[in-house]
Amino acid sequence: MSTNSYYGQEGHGPYELIGIGNLELEEGGNIPNCQLAVATHGTLNAAKDNAILVPTWYSGTSKIMEQVYIGNGRALDPAKYFIIVVNQIGNGLSTSPHNSSGAQAGPTFPKVRIGDDVRAQHKLLTEKYGLKSLALVVGGSMGAQQTYEWAVRYPDMVKRAAPIAGTARNTIHDFLFTETLVEAITSDPGFNKGFYTSSADVREGLLRHAKMWAVMGWSTEFFQENRHKSLGFSSLDDFITNFMYGYFSVMDPNDLLCMAWKWQRGDVSRHTGGDLRAALGRIKAKTFVMPMSSDMFFPPADCQAEWRLIPDAEFRPIQTIDGHLALFGADPNAISQLDKHLGELLATKI
Amino acid sequence: MSTNSYYGQEGHGPYELIGIGNLELEEGGNIPNCQLAVATHGTLNAAKDNAILVPTWYSGTSKIMEQVYIGNGRALDPAKYFIIVVNQIGNGLSTSPHNSSGAQAGPTFPKVRIGDDVRAQHKLLTEKYGLKSLALVVGGSMGAQQTYEWAVRYPDMVKRAAPIAGTARNTIHDFLFTETLVEAITSDPGFNKGFYTSSADVREGLLRHAKMWAVMGWSTEFFQENRHKSLGFSSLDDFITNFMYGYFSVMDPNDLLCMAWKWQRGDVSRHTGGDLRAALGRIKAKTFVMPMSSDMFFPPADCQAEWRLIPDAEFRPIQTIDGHLALFGADPNAISQLDKHLGELLATKI
Repeated sequence: MSTNSYYGQEGHGPYELIGIGNLELEEGGNIPNCQLAVATHGTLNAAKDNAILVPTWYSGTSKIMEQVYIGNGRALDPAKYFIIVVNQIGNGLSTSPHNSSGAQAGPTFPKVRIGDDVRAQHKLLTEKYGLKSLALVVGGSMGAQQTYEWAVRYPDMVKRAAPIAGTARNTIHDFLFTETLVEAITSDPGFNKGFYTSSADVREGLLRHAKMWAVMGWSTEFFQENRHKSLGFSSLDDFITNFMYGYFSVMDPNDLLCMAWKWQRGDVSRHTGGDLRAALGRIKAKTFVMPMSSDMFFPPADCQAEWRLIPDAEFRPIQTIDGHLALFGADPNAISQLDKHLGELLATKI
Repeated sequence: MSTNSYYGQEGHGPYELIGIGNLELEEGGNIPNCQLAVATHGTLNAAKDNAILVPTWYSGTSKIMEQVYIGNGRALDPAKYFIIVVNQIGNGLSTSPHNSSGAQAGPTFPKVRIGDDVRAQHKLLTEKYGLKSLALVVGGSMGAQQTYEWAVRYPDMVKRAAPIAGTARNTIHDFLFTETLVEAITSDPGFNKGFYTSSADVREGLLRHAKMWAVMGWSTEFFQENRHKSLGFSSLDDFITNFMYGYFSVMDPNDLLCMAWKWQRGDVSRHTGGDLRAALGRIKAKTFVMPMSSDMFFPPADCQAEWRLIPDAEFRPIQTIDGHLALFGADPNAISQLDKHLGELLATKI
């Protein structure tokens, strides 16, 4: 177990650490006393039918979901809904390599799959809150992977699903991209096979990883239109150093690698012997598929191909030049499109 | 000066090494006794008006241009045209870091710009062949950068121009992508600031560089449609190892970095104080702008924006799922579209 001041209530709270007991893992092994960091907004009604689950993305925590997606008058409105944001395993707030000890500390942390997260969340929601249905599961990127996993694994429980900028089965291309992110970190001699003393030892690798995010996370139009300057940075260097480097360099490398491994292998067709059509055919949730129009690694075409396999789903791409990282909410127009679609989805009678 | 058996007549010939004397460089300094590796096809006619210049791309040599683009019955037909393929400075055949000695060997090789290549080629064509006009300049990627530079710098000499999958002014996004390629190499401890003994010392960095090419060079549809298997590879691993790694790992790191530096800074608006419209407005060549439809770093939108600034130009995108590396010619349909467009361009009366 190592300390990392980035992860904690100060930067990411308020959240509650909730133990769900022992979590058996799909790849074998288990996480004893698995802790999920959970932030809730609003109140569960008596009928227990106003719950919304929001899983988190790679490197993200419940905080950005709160800041960018949740609010009074928004689609995800705490005045109407009981919104439960669950930090994914490995993200630094929930049980993760850097905050585990003993035989599971750091690089010895077991391999976790999207399905493990979803079963852990299911245990939390059913046992802690007594939920039998979810009005909506909504998440971006790896949050979309978890959303799809929820809709396929628990089709009767999920009434509506909104996978944003993510796929149900990760593509080969996306797998390769993630591999380059992983290699940026692991190739740093300071990484030392995961046995570093602090993130600072892996600084060069984390910076390379951040720059690759700058290439694939935004879009050529984003830079062409000087969006990086309109976000308040004086130059490309300023943007790379103070935004991209600043964001990623404080994170724990083993935590990032835990999430990356999971991301690479997101695949709902594991439930159906590799048959994606059969897996997506199980979905009963009313589903809005919402890619970002300029996304370079979860591009609209990949999302659209899956949308065709989901019964009664709607394809609702978000027009933006902010690429995948429009998820960060820096393009207000993208967020307003998202809000509109989510509002319509929530208004859909089931 | 180091030896590298990859570069030579056996793999890339026949070509002729032609000295053009001293080349003053835009960044300062010079290359004394600059040697250009030149491959020609066909015969110069008496009027000297049937010459076609073909510059080369990053990591490419005259050989792939010969194999993929030139042939009897093709648009670039040696029976009709005198086709001169000039290897760019730094590509390993022409004067390059790895084949230079003394104060210019390896990492001490001077910085070279696209404009330096084009002036070197101009000297070659005018002095060695006595050319006063070029029926066509055509190149892909960095070859497109050189094509644009030719058309802007020598507007009266270039009658037709076909920049394929490249831009006249490199974009910020493309600059960033190239920077991640550079960092993949330079971050390898074996790189040793360029003072390695052989490419094998930098193997890990070259492999990471190759994998990043796999991500940005093709497209998500390329892998989705299993094009890597239809090219004869049994799996993604086989493709990455035997194609991508095999291709790049034998190259000289300093040579690649010389080209990358040049690529990042391609910009015809250097002639006009940064005014791209004014620079492209100088072009007198009939120009076909030909991006690859699925290109991730010279995407159609960037090429189209430049096309609008070129007098009387035509926008002729190539439909393909092979991304930027459709340039390699593995998609016969893309090559046949290219041939058709080039044929029409060459048939245009000037």
